[in-house]
Amino acid sequence: MAKKKQKSKKPAKAKFHFSAGHTVAKRADAGVLRHVPWRSVELETLNPLLQRQLVVGQEIMLARVLLKKGCIVPEHSHHNEQVTYILEGALKFWIDGKDIVVHAGEVLAIPPDMPHKAEALEDTVDLDVFHPPRADWINRTDQYLRGQK
Amino acid sequence: MAKKKQKSKKPAKAKFHFSAGHTVAKRADAGVLRHVPWRSVELETLNPLLQRQLVVGQEIMLARVLLKKGCIVPEHSHHNEQVTYILEGALKFWIDGKDIVVHAGEVLAIPPDMPHKAEALEDTVDLDVFHPPRADWINRTDQYLRGQK
Repeated sequence: MAKKKQKSKKPAKAKFHFSAGHTVAKRADAGVLRHVPWRSVELETLNPLLQRQLVVGQEIMLARVLLKKGCIVPEHSHHNEQVTYILEGALKFWIDGKDIVVHAGEVLAIPPDMPHKAEALEDTVDLDVFHPPRADWINRTDQYLRGQK
Repeated sequence: MAKKKQKSKKPAKAKFHFSAGHTVAKRADAGVLRHVPWRSVELETLNPLLQRQLVVGQEIMLARVLLKKGCIVPEHSHHNEQVTYILEGALKFWIDGKDIVVHAGEVLAIPPDMPHKAEALEDTVDLDVFHPPRADWINRTDQYLRGQK
């Protein structure tokens, strides 16, 4: 990878950026039929305001993300395409030069590599879909989420 | 494509099979940030028991599928990976030699090319996630769903 600094016309990368270089080992059961009740999935606590469950397929990852009111997701970006569906509550996003409040029953489709920050305006249940699965979430190398700013 | 019949050890294809050869034109807005309330998305009626809404991204498609009790989804398969999350109700699947009832709050991860059939045991709200987006659903060439058997 080239290391020289370039004055590019592309938007600046977020402070926390996860590129395709972050890979994840293929799960042995990724290509197998699986019936997964969410209640059977480990609920990981990332910080006092943020918990998460994952169902990881081959090329699709579903994350059920529980955010308490006031939870901040610091600005970050990733090579993974993201589709966020708010099931309960509301998240305010700062993204693409705008702020957008996504309420329950609404979807935000985020292209790859677009920096975004979010804040839970209420206690929120958020379903995040990623392609490909996010290595940093699976490998738990997502330090940007592990310590409330 | 070879047309000769082969006695293969692979599992038989479903009667309705959608292969990677069914492609879909890239949507102009696929790579663009989009905020989409489900209430703003066209609700397509496929048959008296089946309705559907789509949010199509670049490599991810979300489908919100509404099935009335008794709705049958005939056996079919597709090259797309599918992850089904039942939000309300229950679907019974016939898949991989088993029958599996997936209730609200549960997920079924279906690998590519695995034939499956389903029946709604109750009025059901089903969120289906596909990678890549399903050309037959976008192009409305999914005749297997358009006429209740």
